[in-house]
Amino acid sequence: MNNSQPFRISLVGLGTVGMEVLRLLRDNADLIAARAGRRIEVAYLCARDPSRERSMDLSGYAWTEDPAGMGGVDALVELIGGANGPAYATVQKALQNGMSVVTANKALLAHHGYELAKLAEERSVGLACEAAVAGGVPIIKAMRDGLAGNRITGVYGILNGTCNYILTRMRETGQDFNDILKDAQARGYAESDPSFDIDGVDTAHKICLLAAIAFGVKPRIEAVCVNGIRYLTGTDIGFATELGYRIKLLGVAQAHDGRLSLSVEPCLVPAHSPLGVVEDVYNGVFVEGDFVETPLFTGRGAGGAPTASSVVADLIDLARGHRIPAFGIPAGSLAEARFIDAGELMGRYYVRLNVLDRPGVLADVAAILRDHHVSIEGLLQRGRDPDQPVSVMITTHDGTRYGDVAESCRLIGNLEASVEAPCLMRIEDDL
Amino acid sequence: MNNSQPFRISLVGLGTVGMEVLRLLRDNADLIAARAGRRIEVAYLCARDPSRERSMDLSGYAWTEDPAGMGGVDALVELIGGANGPAYATVQKALQNGMSVVTANKALLAHHGYELAKLAEERSVGLACEAAVAGGVPIIKAMRDGLAGNRITGVYGILNGTCNYILTRMRETGQDFNDILKDAQARGYAESDPSFDIDGVDTAHKICLLAAIAFGVKPRIEAVCVNGIRYLTGTDIGFATELGYRIKLLGVAQAHDGRLSLSVEPCLVPAHSPLGVVEDVYNGVFVEGDFVETPLFTGRGAGGAPTASSVVADLIDLARGHRIPAFGIPAGSLAEARFIDAGELMGRYYVRLNVLDRPGVLADVAAILRDHHVSIEGLLQRGRDPDQPVSVMITTHDGTRYGDVAESCRLIGNLEASVEAPCLMRIEDDL
Repeated sequence: MNNSQPFRISLVGLGTVGMEVLRLLRDNADLIAARAGRRIEVAYLCARDPSRERSMDLSGYAWTEDPAGMGGVDALVELIGGANGPAYATVQKALQNGMSVVTANKALLAHHGYELAKLAEERSVGLACEAAVAGGVPIIKAMRDGLAGNRITGVYGILNGTCNYILTRMRETGQDFNDILKDAQARGYAESDPSFDIDGVDTAHKICLLAAIAFGVKPRIEAVCVNGIRYLTGTDIGFATELGYRIKLLGVAQAHDGRLSLSVEPCLVPAHSPLGVVEDVYNGVFVEGDFVETPLFTGRGAGGAPTASSVVADLIDLARGHRIPAFGIPAGSLAEARFIDAGELMGRYYVRLNVLDRPGVLADVAAILRDHHVSIEGLLQRGRDPDQPVSVMITTHDGTRYGDVAESCRLIGNLEASVEAPCLMRIEDDL
Repeated sequence: MNNSQPFRISLVGLGTVGMEVLRLLRDNADLIAARAGRRIEVAYLCARDPSRERSMDLSGYAWTEDPAGMGGVDALVELIGGANGPAYATVQKALQNGMSVVTANKALLAHHGYELAKLAEERSVGLACEAAVAGGVPIIKAMRDGLAGNRITGVYGILNGTCNYILTRMRETGQDFNDILKDAQARGYAESDPSFDIDGVDTAHKICLLAAIAFGVKPRIEAVCVNGIRYLTGTDIGFATELGYRIKLLGVAQAHDGRLSLSVEPCLVPAHSPLGVVEDVYNGVFVEGDFVETPLFTGRGAGGAPTASSVVADLIDLARGHRIPAFGIPAGSLAEARFIDAGELMGRYYVRLNVLDRPGVLADVAAILRDHHVSIEGLLQRGRDPDQPVSVMITTHDGTRYGDVAESCRLIGNLEASVEAPCLMRIEDDL
């Protein structure tokens, strides 16, 4: 590699992130050249609507409709988004044509990551996705490089800023989910169709990629058990606060003696723990490694500028001539993950019931829990207006089998006195 | 580079960290080989006393008394410690002989970093020191690689586990500094001569290295203004807690329009902020970058296993064939830092006085502050036993010039009613 040659890129997709990548490459060009050992040069731009009004004058750039087909380009930056369609086609073509690819597209890699990583290696080019997970937080490089000596046993991430913002505001204001969601939409923190975020799909893509790197397995998005935050109530937020916890939507990847569990679920974490204080739109990732113990990485999880920071970090890696396999080890060495039955997981749980306040209901509930070997650690009852349903919060002892408490919740939900299905969440005391 | 060849190292210094490096390279050998693309092989060991009883059977290893002089070695791992003496001589000789060097030695690099980085580049070998700062937390790689697109404007680090442990325990127990220090020594968290840690020297070395990477300047240890925690009292801890803060010994590196400030000093940070909750022996580094905003990295700051994690991460980098300049840009491009006069720094401050409880004392204090344009934001008085001195805590408004408040403290300390020199600390509300 001749380092006096600039590193030339095609930039595809000029939304918020794309524009910030351009601004970063322009504003910090000298500094980036010093750190990368060569200049990074934007050879071509590509966007659906080149003539759209944008925040920067783009008249000095060359445009193309075939960014993956142009010669003399070292890397293509894909910021189109989406698991399939043009993003997939463009990335595939770029790799086939011998360009490295930098992408912020978690959906694409969660669905096609193995195949694309293999293709990149066959063509001896790079495929990098720091910006796909936790925005500006360099968590992928941390796991792939900084913690590379460790056997990773667990990854726990607050990976979706929209959800974390909603949960933070629900707690601070006491307002309900739907009111806060509207507020988040008005501020641009949530999409008009928010289901991708609030139902945990986005977090699932991200934890899927982190798990692939952590455990050296092929990404398997369909193996992630996904629960979002749509059904959380102010009552749950209040109970959690009272217990000294925060509710966080976590992507969780754990190794259990060679088998893995992957989930997205709202969990209770201690209010003043390093992960518990990650609030608003911030992201945080807690890693367990056999030697490093428990490092934590936090920062802005979204937004144009932080995400651009990660895109450019990947470009600097490539411009330096560093090409690490997308998932840390060669694609051909990635194992097929074996998964543990979620029912087997042991832990401590939060259960919130909403039941009619009738004689005998608590006895029925207690009997169901007893019959399933679920040991009650604490119990709290609230909201006793006449004729209104009552909220009952139960915490279990640690060492409770998830399958047992889940089946108990199902049966409790079937009780005639039950107004709605119980809310069941993990309590993660060590995060 | 032929990747089928193992990457061969000499390991020098077999204390706690050295033994953990050996254990890590043995226990995770296959995983490391998969990630590095080749095996990492210990070619030679070197220690002052090879026959000493150790936690692992070392009879299968080859020993040498001249680790930097042996052929067929790709990298030397220096875990001797100390700015000069054998560590310096060994590293210099290894680089001269064309070996890469991985070191955990912050003192060495804070004093000789520029010269050694230059030597490494002249010989086209690597010099890496992830383990020198914040133990297992991969903060150097984060700044050098993950945040490489950013202009860094500030770095704030809890970088000494001993101090953080002492400060945490003082708050939790209400005991005095000296009692907690004894406890820390008994637990092995503090040396029998603790001055290196508690007087801030260790933190100074570390912030000096982080500043070099953040700002692209030659390390200049003599430019760091260093204050330790020896003179902090339970009264200060109590006042800080009452105000909603924690006292943390911070290494601080800031850029101010092209000039830098470097300091080590106890600071008040919000109790429940991401840095405020970094307690006990944990370390945390908060970075300000122009695009990434404010990522934070926390974890174990010392101990054999976490430090070994960082040593091995550097070895994996080198085994992959990646060689980034020690301070992020070529040594020849490192600038001579220009420093701002500490008196010019603006901020918000905590001042604690210990004065005799006499009429007119507060008027004298207030007059001194007024004459130096120091505006009082809050004032709290405590400990009014008859004939005893009284503790008075003053917080200033933001925008106070450090030189003004420092001069005020000097004059207040000279008052006849003053029992001891005032305690002056920065309040960092944004950390």
